[in-house]
Amino acid sequence: MTIHRVNDLFGPSDALKKKGIPLYIQVKNAIQTAIAEERLGNGDVLPPERDLAKYLDVSRVTIRKAIDELVKEDVLTQRQGAGTFVSERVEQPLNHLRSFTEVMRDRGKETTAKWLDRSLGVPHDDERHALQLSPEEEVVRFYRLRYVDGKPMALELATVPSHYLDNPFAIEGSLYEILEAQGRRPVRAFQRIRAITLDDNRAQLLDISEQAAVLYIERTGVDKEGTPVEFTRSWFPGDSYDFVAEIHDTH
Amino acid sequence: MTIHRVNDLFGPSDALKKKGIPLYIQVKNAIQTAIAEERLGNGDVLPPERDLAKYLDVSRVTIRKAIDELVKEDVLTQRQGAGTFVSERVEQPLNHLRSFTEVMRDRGKETTAKWLDRSLGVPHDDERHALQLSPEEEVVRFYRLRYVDGKPMALELATVPSHYLDNPFAIEGSLYEILEAQGRRPVRAFQRIRAITLDDNRAQLLDISEQAAVLYIERTGVDKEGTPVEFTRSWFPGDSYDFVAEIHDTH
Repeated sequence: MTIHRVNDLFGPSDALKKKGIPLYIQVKNAIQTAIAEERLGNGDVLPPERDLAKYLDVSRVTIRKAIDELVKEDVLTQRQGAGTFVSERVEQPLNHLRSFTEVMRDRGKETTAKWLDRSLGVPHDDERHALQLSPEEEVVRFYRLRYVDGKPMALELATVPSHYLDNPFAIEGSLYEILEAQGRRPVRAFQRIRAITLDDNRAQLLDISEQAAVLYIERTGVDKEGTPVEFTRSWFPGDSYDFVAEIHDTH
Repeated sequence: MTIHRVNDLFGPSDALKKKGIPLYIQVKNAIQTAIAEERLGNGDVLPPERDLAKYLDVSRVTIRKAIDELVKEDVLTQRQGAGTFVSERVEQPLNHLRSFTEVMRDRGKETTAKWLDRSLGVPHDDERHALQLSPEEEVVRFYRLRYVDGKPMALELATVPSHYLDNPFAIEGSLYEILEAQGRRPVRAFQRIRAITLDDNRAQLLDISEQAAVLYIERTGVDKEGTPVEFTRSWFPGDSYDFVAEIHDTH
């Protein structure tokens, strides 16, 4: 946790001079830019309202309105008597092949899940293609809302060929552990990442606004014999996650 | 390029039954979901308007309004006499350490750049931290809008310690090639990825709406001696990029 001086947080480009945009929105944007660019880090304290008002040359009412909205959006957190903090973000490794349950367990977080759908059926085009199935083969779909410490943190739709699962409807917890028990744990995966916004329905499930940016990750996991065993699509609210990876030169 | 039948594109969950949301917005959402979930792929043809209207049970005027907006947002492309296509997305490898210029050159794309800022100055907190600099050391900032085939495709702000560059203001093209010439090309990097929306100013530069999801990538590149030589922040419009990577189990 760091305490910043207000002039370290905002650059000259953050000056609130845009015509036609309400001032509190401009204050919100300036704070979110400072967070996105890590001038304000995970768990950092926001400078006092009066310093922000003075530096940005707006009223304290405007500052308070911006902060209230950011608290509502979970970007900031207020603790009685302790001030306003940048909400903690989850750092998730991008180049380790782990299930959501396993990643969170590693960082001592409790995960729970709400089942949105567990169904057996014929694969859609994209699933058939990813899992290299014939049209007759059936798949099981696991559609879950994942919670971390009681807060909705990810939507996950996993599709697995039905013949790799003994009793699909008995599955709880980690899909990777179930696949491992069947000798089918993915050992490598092809991953595709995209920034999107969500439709109404999915945004509501994640308790975010329809305008919020979301990281969409699509993963096709392959077992040690080279057979695709899972096709998983996940949606992570942008304001809760950083995906981190170390990469090496292949020049 | 694939031609789809309309009932392969939309699931039952895409039924247009949400109260209080204009129908054309719901049509837009359904098409964008089909693209995000790859039921409609890169360069695919959209089914005829009358089939869409019939299947989704709305007027052709509504379908046309939705399509017009998606064309405006570059999600769809219309070619005279040939119909409506899903706009081509750029697939960018996520686990190769290459510069923007090099990645695009590999796929035969012409890149150009517009300089937004080239400046020499004292590092900000985040830059000093990433580059492990003392407060007295100066940095050079390269802020560029990158174009591919004439279209703005990325914003890039690279910060490099000034003593690694002979003549910072003479730099054009690939920063990595300049660093390589100095024996300082990054050989590994720490990367952080986040989904965000942009402020007004940056959205305008990229010619996207303020509501559009953007992939923010922050990279700290380290040379063969383990010294951080670049701290680069890039913003990629979500509707133009897929970042792809193969990952291996480290279980």
